[in-house]
Amino acid sequence: MTKRISHLGIAVKDLSASEALFKKLLGDENVHHETVEDQGVSIASFKIGESVIELTSPTSADSPIAKFIEKRGEGIHHLALEVDDVAGELARLKAEGIQLIDESPKLGAHEMLIAFLHPKSTNGVLVELCQKK
Amino acid sequence: MTKRISHLGIAVKDLSASEALFKKLLGDENVHHETVEDQGVSIASFKIGESVIELTSPTSADSPIAKFIEKRGEGIHHLALEVDDVAGELARLKAEGIQLIDESPKLGAHEMLIAFLHPKSTNGVLVELCQKK
Repeated sequence: MTKRISHLGIAVKDLSASEALFKKLLGDENVHHETVEDQGVSIASFKIGESVIELTSPTSADSPIAKFIEKRGEGIHHLALEVDDVAGELARLKAEGIQLIDESPKLGAHEMLIAFLHPKSTNGVLVELCQKK
Repeated sequence: MTKRISHLGIAVKDLSASEALFKKLLGDENVHHETVEDQGVSIASFKIGESVIELTSPTSADSPIAKFIEKRGEGIHHLALEVDDVAGELARLKAEGIQLIDESPKLGAHEMLIAFLHPKSTNGVLVELCQKK
């Protein structure tokens, strides 16, 4: 059972320019910064109610986010849904015929356990499941 | 000031197939249905915490959603942010240099006043501002 939209990942080329833009857009000066080496991304995030808008820029040319921007341009990259038990949900969804990118949870930003589902089986939406550690 | 992610619009071709998929994905059988003639869309929506996932399919070939799917394929179409005063936010954002699609609020789904910002000036994200009537 899904508890909330944890965050929405938006792929951007220039993190500081996009951060300035979203400060205006959201009317919010409070930004949290994080780098996830493992995924080759730098993040600037804004809290909106119970969710987070996560501006994500590549730290290297071979980062998956760099490839996404090259192919599709800047824009919404993924939807992260919080669940109680990522491993349990992966098993349930696999049995339902949903294609997984990650067969088991890994450590993501914000100290969350995360796993991605394949957009081919989810209407073109890259879905991340996440769980508080 | 943005209060919450009101909803996330996902463009889909076949509403009943996608509804069945998202019931599995979200582990939720509760669906709300709506048609917005004005925008040429049929909607199936799921409540997730304080937000809504809105599966949106075209009711005619010249609907903007039909054109989006033709051009980009199925996937996340827009991000709707709830604010207290759409008209006030449009004026503020216009003054900040953000390009608007709608110069003034109009009536949308869920009895909300809505207006869209142009993705050209918002990092490729089609942003909808909305306000409870």
